[in-house]
Amino acid sequence: MDGAVRKEQICDAAKRLFAARGYHATSVRDIAAQLDLQGGSLYSHIDAKEDLLWALVDRAADSFISRAAAVAARFPDPTERLQALVRAHVEYMASDLDNAVVFHHEWRFLAPARRLAIAHRRHEYEDYFRQAIHEGVSRDVFLPQDERFATLLVMSLVNWFYQWYRPDGPLPADAIAGRFNELILRALGAPAPIGKGKSI
Amino acid sequence: MDGAVRKEQICDAAKRLFAARGYHATSVRDIAAQLDLQGGSLYSHIDAKEDLLWALVDRAADSFISRAAAVAARFPDPTERLQALVRAHVEYMASDLDNAVVFHHEWRFLAPARRLAIAHRRHEYEDYFRQAIHEGVSRDVFLPQDERFATLLVMSLVNWFYQWYRPDGPLPADAIAGRFNELILRALGAPAPIGKGKSI
Repeated sequence: MDGAVRKEQICDAAKRLFAARGYHATSVRDIAAQLDLQGGSLYSHIDAKEDLLWALVDRAADSFISRAAAVAARFPDPTERLQALVRAHVEYMASDLDNAVVFHHEWRFLAPARRLAIAHRRHEYEDYFRQAIHEGVSRDVFLPQDERFATLLVMSLVNWFYQWYRPDGPLPADAIAGRFNELILRALGAPAPIGKGKSI
Repeated sequence: MDGAVRKEQICDAAKRLFAARGYHATSVRDIAAQLDLQGGSLYSHIDAKEDLLWALVDRAADSFISRAAAVAARFPDPTERLQALVRAHVEYMASDLDNAVVFHHEWRFLAPARRLAIAHRRHEYEDYFRQAIHEGVSRDVFLPQDERFATLLVMSLVNWFYQWYRPDGPLPADAIAGRFNELILRALGAPAPIGKGKSI
């Protein structure tokens, strides 16, 4: 089997186990067992269990950031951009919940240097949201406010999502993102989206 | 040493370790080592590691619910009640972050019957928030809206808190709760709190 394909299978197995049981409770032997391998032979593909956690978290950070960069390039308007960022985040989370759990919870078990690197990348990612809110406030489309807390509101809503979302639930991810955006825009004091506003 | 005192010390040690490393990665031996006990002698106080997780999560659920019940008894007005619920939640979380981590994350490692019992109690707790929002909407102090998502917004904000709050950060917990409440009331379409509103 191709080494890259095997590496991918190993990452997938690690992701499922880290999400279900936690990083510390998953051994290299557990991961190998998922692939009908011996623990020892897994080490021809990886150096250490933490490399798998790092590969997963690093890749998730890449995906979050590249999606946000694409959204930012496409939507100069801060209101549209913020809504599109929320949609992209929710849809990516919904597409791979195990990845979301590992990225949002297990990342804290990385060794300090890697944990710091991920903290920086999280900050880089959140900057897309922060910047959209800042531009909206600057252009008077959002009310003046504590922009740090406004960003926290958005990140809390889109991140806590992985705790309750079920793929077989009543609403698809894009409808959930729509509900989130209605609440977020109201919290920011933005005008209601056209065609969705309720008269007051 | 008094058995109840010893039990309390065991719960405290378990809480710290479950929060720091995760439930699955913590052994009874690890907990005993924190108290300079042998693993075996811990079993004179508890039957199984899961009993400790259950004791911690069950006690946290009790605390959340009894605080919410006290708030509900004190504040008949739904806007005041919702704000007081948010304050009580944030202050309780801030007072014991390890407890918050165990309650919000490690609870999912309980055995099925206990996990279900806690899911019910979480629902019971969230009903206080849901009910305040529902009354606010019914009395036209909050805008008509998807009350389930409005409740989710509040729970996301107050629960995600444990992911970023640092006791040595710039804002005390009650100031954070105040910022949360400004955003929440605006998201619900409530009038700005007296003395804090910004003119639009």
